[in-house]
Amino acid sequence: MKIAIQGEFGAFSHEAALKMVPGCSVVPCAVSVEVFDRLRRRRVDAAVIPIENSLAGSVTEHYDLLLANPMHIHSEYLLRIRHNLIAAPGVRFKDVRRVFSHPVALAQCRDFFRKSRAVEAVSFYDTAGSVKHVIGNGLKDAAAIAGRQAAVEYRGTILRTGLEDDKQNFTRFFLISRRPHKSKNADKTSLAFSIKNQPGALFKALSVFALRDISLSKIESRPVKGRPWEYVFYADIMRGDDEAARNAIRHLEEICEFVKILGIYRAA
Amino acid sequence: MKIAIQGEFGAFSHEAALKMVPGCSVVPCAVSVEVFDRLRRRRVDAAVIPIENSLAGSVTEHYDLLLANPMHIHSEYLLRIRHNLIAAPGVRFKDVRRVFSHPVALAQCRDFFRKSRAVEAVSFYDTAGSVKHVIGNGLKDAAAIAGRQAAVEYRGTILRTGLEDDKQNFTRFFLISRRPHKSKNADKTSLAFSIKNQPGALFKALSVFALRDISLSKIESRPVKGRPWEYVFYADIMRGDDEAARNAIRHLEEICEFVKILGIYRAA
Repeated sequence: MKIAIQGEFGAFSHEAALKMVPGCSVVPCAVSVEVFDRLRRRRVDAAVIPIENSLAGSVTEHYDLLLANPMHIHSEYLLRIRHNLIAAPGVRFKDVRRVFSHPVALAQCRDFFRKSRAVEAVSFYDTAGSVKHVIGNGLKDAAAIAGRQAAVEYRGTILRTGLEDDKQNFTRFFLISRRPHKSKNADKTSLAFSIKNQPGALFKALSVFALRDISLSKIESRPVKGRPWEYVFYADIMRGDDEAARNAIRHLEEICEFVKILGIYRAA
Repeated sequence: MKIAIQGEFGAFSHEAALKMVPGCSVVPCAVSVEVFDRLRRRRVDAAVIPIENSLAGSVTEHYDLLLANPMHIHSEYLLRIRHNLIAAPGVRFKDVRRVFSHPVALAQCRDFFRKSRAVEAVSFYDTAGSVKHVIGNGLKDAAAIAGRQAAVEYRGTILRTGLEDDKQNFTRFFLISRRPHKSKNADKTSLAFSIKNQPGALFKALSVFALRDISLSKIESRPVKGRPWEYVFYADIMRGDDEAARNAIRHLEEICEFVKILGIYRAA
């Protein structure tokens, strides 16, 4: 099975893809738009995308792309984000002067940089890409911060592990494809809806769930392009395709300008 | 009055600061944490921060910093984001081969790059910073995309204006300071609240406004650090410090784990 990811081989999305579809082959894409393009043009069977990190928050671009494209969520996965210091074989920790990584990863390893005074943090476009850079160029005084899979991919040595300040660091991934998919034991539904610009509109929209004791695990708002200060909402409800959920969604359609079901799947 | 901004002289925040406090002097800071630090340490009188763009969405880091710091919103301002192509004096449009800017600005000028085939987009850390770079280094084959104020600041020539694809491009700015401020004609309140992880909790929280016919103009969720998949909500209500608003907030305090008023001010 061919699965598109955003980022280089060895990215956290690659790690997630291998967990979600063991034995899959991964197709790296430079940008997220390309991931959705390849999927739409049938160049890949599916894609694995990060949707939310427990510290950094939602990957809002992916919400926008899920809404704009006819794709469906098949499953979700929670990956524990463990940052490793990876260098070319033979390089020792005391040789390292510069550490490359994506700014978000660098920001999640502040304690490490505070304790390692001799080491300078250098921003790079990608976590796995920074490992590729350091090893590909045979840098002897540098290392990179990335997931374990990047060390496997580029044959790097892991000098330190667990560099992240906060161990409660998880990223939630979606496996998406062109066709809708209903797993038998689905207990979670992701949907998007837009409400009229009226007082109490969001309250009314949420009432369709509250009145049926349906729990929301997440709600996110995003701007509507071309209509400043109007929003689309993304919500996850803790129900699969049961009668209460179907009734709630039908009720939501009465209230909202549009409703789109992004996927019905098994909660991770 | 000394006002801290994130970014270089000539940034859109500089433009907004001059509109919000005519004649102010601006103190540029490399990162947003520094803006809040300078304000807390009384090195500046106030700060001007972007909170939301009508196309890109919320500046979530600023919501997090408003919650973590004892700062108060004094006023808001909507700046129309107009992207200009700026070059060193003497450089003509036909000389330009590379155009530097922040990736978000480059992404908002896709039509321009589609039509100008001879020109390559190059990512840079900052819009105004890219003008500083192009002019400071006397580049003859390059230009930068930034606001008008950057051309004033670095004495650049505006070669093209209105480069943005979508003219409905506005950024909402807050003027914040250490002391709470109640303007007489305030009609908007920004607040943060966290809800218990219980079914219907958000619905109950929103009921305090809906039951009093108080309109919400915006709601945003952000992760709580150390407690994965729990969220703080940020909401704007279209009321100043009147009886209904005070009752609603007291009611909200009954329901929520915490409530923080970020500011009561005049809607832009």
